[in-house]
Amino acid sequence: MMAFKWPVRVYIEDTDFGGIVYYVNYLKFMERARTELLRSAGWSQHELAANHLIFVVGSVEAQYLAPAKLDDQLIVHTTIKKPQGARIKFLQAVVKEGSDRVLCQAEIEVIAVTPAMRPKRWPKELITTIDQTHPEVWS
Amino acid sequence: MMAFKWPVRVYIEDTDFGGIVYYVNYLKFMERARTELLRSAGWSQHELAANHLIFVVGSVEAQYLAPAKLDDQLIVHTTIKKPQGARIKFLQAVVKEGSDRVLCQAEIEVIAVTPAMRPKRWPKELITTIDQTHPEVWS
Amino acid sequence: MMAFKWPVRVYIEDTDFGGIVYYVNYLKFMERARTELLRSAGWSQHELAANHLIFVVGSVEAQYLAPAKLDDQLIVHTTIKKPQGARIKFLQAVVKEGSDRVLCQAEIEVIAVTPAMRPKRWPKELITTIDQTHPEVWS
Amino acid sequence: MMAFKWPVRVYIEDTDFGGIVYYVNYLKFMERARTELLRSAGWSQHELAANHLIFVVGSVEAQYLAPAKLDDQLIVHTTIKKPQGARIKFLQAVVKEGSDRVLCQAEIEVIAVTPAMRPKRWPKELITTIDQTHPEVWS
Repeated sequence: MMAFKWPVRVYIEDTDFGGIVYYVNYLKFMERARTELLRSAGWSQHELAANHLIFVVGSVEAQYLAPAKLDDQLIVHTTIKKPQGARIKFLQAVVKEGSDRVLCQAEIEVIAVTPAMRPKRWPKELITTIDQTHPEVWS
Repeated sequence: MMAFKWPVRVYIEDTDFGGIVYYVNYLKFMERARTELLRSAGWSQHELAANHLIFVVGSVEAQYLAPAKLDDQLIVHTTIKKPQGARIKFLQAVVKEGSDRVLCQAEIEVIAVTPAMRPKRWPKELITTIDQTHPEVWS
Repeated sequence: MMAFKWPVRVYIEDTDFGGIVYYVNYLKFMERARTELLRSAGWSQHELAANHLIFVVGSVEAQYLAPAKLDDQLIVHTTIKKPQGARIKFLQAVVKEGSDRVLCQAEIEVIAVTPAMRPKRWPKELITTIDQTHPEVWS
Repeated sequence: MMAFKWPVRVYIEDTDFGGIVYYVNYLKFMERARTELLRSAGWSQHELAANHLIFVVGSVEAQYLAPAKLDDQLIVHTTIKKPQGARIKFLQAVVKEGSDRVLCQAEIEVIAVTPAMRPKRWPKELITTIDQTHPEVWS
C-alpha cells in the first residue's frame, strides 16, 4: 500500500492495566501522523492557526483488530481521500514494524474551520503542496 | 430519551490549544459512563478481570457536533443494544447539562474476552443485573 | 487533618501496564481538587482567564508512597499556605477512601500570571472568598 | 552539558487551553527519554518486567521555567546520579532545539522493585551497560 508512513514508539504512558495500548491512544498516534504529513508538505498547525485556519475532527470510524504492547515500534500508514469543500477523509492504519498485520484502522474526517468554528474550504495551495511532496497519499 | 446518565466535569487536562475539549477525550468520558453503569449494577472491572473476564473495544463510530469547553458540566447518556454473543453495542451521547444539544455521539462495540484475548459470551448474570437495575438502558 | 476533600475514582484511562495508576496522573487528580476548591469558593478558571488571570504551575515536589489501583475511590486532601505575592503553595495528599494511608503527597506552587505570562498578585477577593467558604484550608 | 539527548515533538495532544504544553506532560517526555536511554543500552522495560524487575517513580521535584508550544521541537537532556541500592536519581531538563534555555527541569527518583513492589538493587549489568554505552550520563 502506498501511504505516508510515520513511526510511533509505545511508552508506558500509552498502556493500560490490561498491559496493552489503551485504545483511545491510537487516535493520538494517528493525529501525530497527520500532523507530520502536513509538516513534511511545509505546513505547521500553529502557523495555520495564526492564519485563522484550524482543523477539527468531524467523525471517527475505528476498528481495533489486535493489541499493541509496551515497547512496540509501530508504523502509522496514512492516505487521503480527495477533499470535498471543508472536509477531508484520512484513511489510517497502525501496524507493527516489519509486519503487515493491521492493529487498528480508522477513517477520520477532518474539517477546516475558522476560529469561530465555521467550515471553510481546504486552501488549494495546501492540497497542491501535499500533492507535490506526497503524491502517493491520495487513495 | 431514557438512558443511564453520568456527569463529567471538564478540567484543564481535558482541553487542547484550541480552548476546547480534545476530541479523543470524549471517548474517555464515555468509558467512565460505561464503567459506572456496570458498577451501579454491582460489577467492577478489576473483579471481573480477576475472574478472567476483560472488556476490549472492538470498534468506535463517533461524530463530533459541537465543542465542550473548560469548566463545562457534561452529562453522558448511555443506552445498550441487546448483546450478540461476545459483543455489545453501547450508544452514547455527551450533552451539556441543562441542554438537549448533543456535542458528541458514538456507537461503541465492546467485546468480552478472556485474558488470552479470545471472545467470550457476555455472562448472563451480568446482563440480568443490568436489566434489573437499569431497565431503561436497552435501546 | 482539616482540608478541602475531593473524591476521584480510578478509571482504566488512569492505569498503566503495571496495573496501577500511572504516576503522572496523580498530578491531574490534584489539579481537579484545586479547581473544585476554587469553584466552591465561587471562581471558575475560564471566567478568571476571561479576566486575564491565569494560573500556571511553578514547581512540583511529589512523593509516591503506595500505588492506587483500578476502581479505587480516592480522596484528595488539599490545604494552602498563605500566598506570597503571585505565588501560592498547595499541600495535597491522595488517600484511599476510608483509609489514612497517603498514596501520594505533593507541594505544588501555583503562580498567578497575566495572559502574557507576567506574574501578578493573587487577587485579594479570591483569597477572601476562599477564607470565607473554606477557612479550614489554610495550613 | 554532557547528557543523553532525546528529541520530543509537541503535538495537539500535549497542549492545554492556555495554548502551551500541559505541565504534567513534561513528565511523560522525561520518561520517554529515560526509556530510550535504557533501550540504547540494550534494555527494554517489557523484557525487564518479564524478568521481574519493574521501575516505579519514588519522587519528583520539577521546576517549570518557561512554556513550550504546539509544534516545538524539544530536546530532553538526561544525566544520572550513581545508584544507591534500589534508588537512582535522574536529572532531566527539557530545552527547545537550538536553544540553551531550560523550559522544565526535574530530579526524578526511580526505584527498582519486584512485581510485589519490594525494593531491589539495580542490577549491576544494567549499570555497567549504561556506563559502556553512555559514559557521559553520570553526573
